[in-house]
Amino acid sequence: MTENAPDNLIPELTSRNVLLEYLSGVTDKASLLELHPADFSDQFEQLSNEQREAFIADTGDLISPDVLAELEDEVVEDILPLLPKVQIAEALTELDSDDATQIFEEMEDEQREEILEVLEPEDRASIEAGMAFDEETIGRLMQREFVAAPPFWSVGDAIDHMRATGEELPDLFFNIWVVDTKFHPIGFIPVSTLMRSPRETKLETLMNDQIFSVGQDMDQEEAAYIFEKYHLISAPVLDTDGRISGIMTADDIIDIIQDENKEDMLALAGVSEAGVTDTAFTTVKARAPWLFINLITAILASIVIALFDYTIAEFVQLAILMPIVASMGGNAGTQALAVAVRSLAERDLTSQNAWRVIRREAIAALFNGFIFAIALAIIAYIWFGRQDIAIVAFIAMVINHFFAGIAGITVPLALKRMGADPAVSSSVFVTTVTDVIGFFAFLGFAAIMLL
Amino acid sequence: MTENAPDNLIPELTSRNVLLEYLSGVTDKASLLELHPADFSDQFEQLSNEQREAFIADTGDLISPDVLAELEDEVVEDILPLLPKVQIAEALTELDSDDATQIFEEMEDEQREEILEVLEPEDRASIEAGMAFDEETIGRLMQREFVAAPPFWSVGDAIDHMRATGEELPDLFFNIWVVDTKFHPIGFIPVSTLMRSPRETKLETLMNDQIFSVGQDMDQEEAAYIFEKYHLISAPVLDTDGRISGIMTADDIIDIIQDENKEDMLALAGVSEAGVTDTAFTTVKARAPWLFINLITAILASIVIALFDYTIAEFVQLAILMPIVASMGGNAGTQALAVAVRSLAERDLTSQNAWRVIRREAIAALFNGFIFAIALAIIAYIWFGRQDIAIVAFIAMVINHFFAGIAGITVPLALKRMGADPAVSSSVFVTTVTDVIGFFAFLGFAAIMLL
Repeated sequence: MTENAPDNLIPELTSRNVLLEYLSGVTDKASLLELHPADFSDQFEQLSNEQREAFIADTGDLISPDVLAELEDEVVEDILPLLPKVQIAEALTELDSDDATQIFEEMEDEQREEILEVLEPEDRASIEAGMAFDEETIGRLMQREFVAAPPFWSVGDAIDHMRATGEELPDLFFNIWVVDTKFHPIGFIPVSTLMRSPRETKLETLMNDQIFSVGQDMDQEEAAYIFEKYHLISAPVLDTDGRISGIMTADDIIDIIQDENKEDMLALAGVSEAGVTDTAFTTVKARAPWLFINLITAILASIVIALFDYTIAEFVQLAILMPIVASMGGNAGTQALAVAVRSLAERDLTSQNAWRVIRREAIAALFNGFIFAIALAIIAYIWFGRQDIAIVAFIAMVINHFFAGIAGITVPLALKRMGADPAVSSSVFVTTVTDVIGFFAFLGFAAIMLL
Repeated sequence: MTENAPDNLIPELTSRNVLLEYLSGVTDKASLLELHPADFSDQFEQLSNEQREAFIADTGDLISPDVLAELEDEVVEDILPLLPKVQIAEALTELDSDDATQIFEEMEDEQREEILEVLEPEDRASIEAGMAFDEETIGRLMQREFVAAPPFWSVGDAIDHMRATGEELPDLFFNIWVVDTKFHPIGFIPVSTLMRSPRETKLETLMNDQIFSVGQDMDQEEAAYIFEKYHLISAPVLDTDGRISGIMTADDIIDIIQDENKEDMLALAGVSEAGVTDTAFTTVKARAPWLFINLITAILASIVIALFDYTIAEFVQLAILMPIVASMGGNAGTQALAVAVRSLAERDLTSQNAWRVIRREAIAALFNGFIFAIALAIIAYIWFGRQDIAIVAFIAMVINHFFAGIAGITVPLALKRMGADPAVSSSVFVTTVTDVIGFFAFLGFAAIMLL
């Protein structure tokens, strides 16, 4: 037991890559063994596909069960075919049921068959139970090991029982779930409370009966919201009959939250999925669909411009100013949209306050529209010396800002109401609205006023 | 103890607002008392400012310490001046040190003085200790209550000690921190392990000496990353001498992660801060700065267009097609940018793999640019029947996509390297690049080829 300086307790967050150093012969295998599985997996993820293959061919045995559990799904999917069957089976046996299921998820059907054959019946059953649930539901993600006790037990009974059955218990647990004869949870006791209480106290007098639980068919996002809202560290997972079938803990919820946030942020930017290790080809595939939709909407906007080609040919100033109107509207719409999508995700925006928020967005849009319309009008007047063009720019800016604000809030609300993900498809609607309205208002008023 | 059906254990996530119902006389005070503080605060946040004032004037006593702790910072800031001094002082006394500090943070200087005067010396000291740290550092956010024990104690000693000092311990804790004589952590024991172990076992033989801790001056984002990476449920906070000064737990980390994600997502869309309860005026203030910057960059793009006004006057088809080139580039840039910002936040993108990712983005951009350039060229040819315009559109699309991809990845990387937040300022640079290059390439080649 040595005295620890703070710097070796606080993880060092540098970008040194020991795996890369090993591959290039700068360091030896001993340094690899010192890495925490979380660091090992992070550094492995940073390798290129070729480097990964080289690493596995040379030192694949260092991909321990814990490292496999830490790796991102796409990476697991890529390397599973490269690992020996025995090594994978060992990982599935050793890991907790939730981690094992997540690795199994990434296998091809053929490999699944092979691996299931060599597993012990109970490990096999546990994985098959997890796989019976839909992806991204709690049933897939939950840990099946938990500690339950009947209400008539005393603190001493519970502690003695846990000492006796040590091996079968989960490594770590935070609450004891008090259950009735049908395994319905009726209360819980934090382990820290249990430990501090006199041995003879009955669990039923000690337990807290305000339980927050999640459902095994519940979407992971829903469960994450419940954890966040009620500040939970762990919660029981209930089956359809209300019996405990597993538990979720806050560290797994953190992973879910990060996944969901990543999904929303990328969806808003029109990317279907992304990782730094994607190949150029995967990147093209993940982005082309959105670019295609954007091409269609941009053509729509161009058709609007084409309606006024004579006006533009006569007043080329319009071609110079029109991108400003469209761009400002697009930005105002994106702002309103990002706020709405985030508020919907946090459930701050509900049917209770939707109208108030829509009204606020409309007022704010009109106000900002007015300010920047004046700015653009002044610029247009100074630039081209024409009052009529300045007035047209002013009117178009106010109109476009107003519709941008309205679209930014109502489009995600409408998509949500229709059961669609507001993050995924909102942007395209909102920018189409702002482009089409921006060009139409600007060129339309110009046609009326200038010709 | 009644038998619980699953539906009253799984929180109901409807949008019913009991506070609103109370205000409009539909329900009585008893229903308000049944609300969990987290639900109470959520529903309070959904009220308009006038409704909040009316509610506090009528039933302000229901804003319990727990409700105050649950409310969002901006809402706390708004309502603190409306609450009696005694009620606030009581909340600060009753709450854990981290929650008390966060409420205190939101007070005006004058109110702070008043409240500090009426607090007990130890509560006062604890709040002042928290306030000594910068905002968004762990020192402000940590809980000061924790359980520590020397390595030579036995399990029995530790349990007896905790039973004896029950009142002073935190309500909930997950680990016992084993410390040396200078209060440096040298190991930890999960409570669930402690409870299962024989009473005579020495803590030093039981403890795990691989501790992950965070620093009290550490930025909250850094601490959240450590929790996420190593799947921590709680971690000790070390002072500059490496002694434990408090702890952080995963439920607080979830709040931090959500705050940081919200910040990033809004920053990318150019919104400085937002909540559904903002007034129209706050909304205008949060969005106008970015719109102003966008106006400047849009004018830059317009100046580029103005350089080619004669070309446009002669070939009005250019005015029709140019927004397509700019919009496609802008979208491609935003896609690359969102991926880069997210990868930087997750620390997947490092100096180790930056070049590989830049190369990938460049290849993907060229590839997508090529596909959509062909599409646009075909459309332009069909639309206007001119081969030269189609060729100009093709060249401009490829060039703009390429620079969009490069800017989307290099701008956030450069900002990060300069110590700036890549989420906040990247968008403006990237869209300026795509607009200016898009218009310049398109109109420039047109001027060369058509005139």
